[in-house]
Amino acid sequence: MSNTKVLPLVEPESDAVAPCCPPLTERPFTAEEAETAARMFKALGDPVRLRLFSAVASHEDGEACVCDISDVGVSQPTVSHHLKKLKEAGLLTSERRGTWVYYRVEPSVLAAMGRLLAMAPAAA
Amino acid sequence: MSNTKVLPLVEPESDAVAPCCPPLTERPFTAEEAETAARMFKALGDPVRLRLFSAVASHEDGEACVCDISDVGVSQPTVSHHLKKLKEAGLLTSERRGTWVYYRVEPSVLAAMGRLLAMAPAAA
Repeated sequence: MSNTKVLPLVEPESDAVAPCCPPLTERPFTAEEAETAARMFKALGDPVRLRLFSAVASHEDGEACVCDISDVGVSQPTVSHHLKKLKEAGLLTSERRGTWVYYRVEPSVLAAMGRLLAMAPAAA
Repeated sequence: MSNTKVLPLVEPESDAVAPCCPPLTERPFTAEEAETAARMFKALGDPVRLRLFSAVASHEDGEACVCDISDVGVSQPTVSHHLKKLKEAGLLTSERRGTWVYYRVEPSVLAAMGRLLAMAPAAA
């Protein structure tokens, strides 16, 4: 079967989500850094998105099918809408396999957000 | 010595911002956890707020007067509005001293947010 063409081009979803910024405590952010980082925080600033995100993040192998994570009390179109937002923010990636779309957490983005929140080391 | 009763009533500024939640990768968040955590992320999900926050966080001694941090290209009332939002989210505390109000970062909340984003350790 010649299914090689289906292989994923593993490209970042968007340049905007490349790890961008120093810890928040290091120096005042520039306008551009703030734009980039705020986009990531905003994506997690909604309770439904946060539940979906933690459902994916904590699922076996850090990957979940939509069918696994729709249990958050909102309609399927709303779930899809929020998953799309999380993808746009670079927090999730997705891949269609057969009937279902599978979502994965993007660990580098999570790590970058964690780094933003790291407290500055004691001044030298 | 009978000083046991004095021991830690270390009360958070607001119940809403008490460190609430396990790492996002540990298990799916409950609705209540998601509400609390989303509030913190949302507060940093705006570029102007993020610039103000990093201006305070990176200022000498982690404390800044409004007069130190108004350099973000928005009006003074807008600065005040955003600082209020950051306070409501528990990310900043404030204290009036003489003419000026001084803002400080609340390290425990920052630490709690960092913990949320920590990657889960390899399963035991």
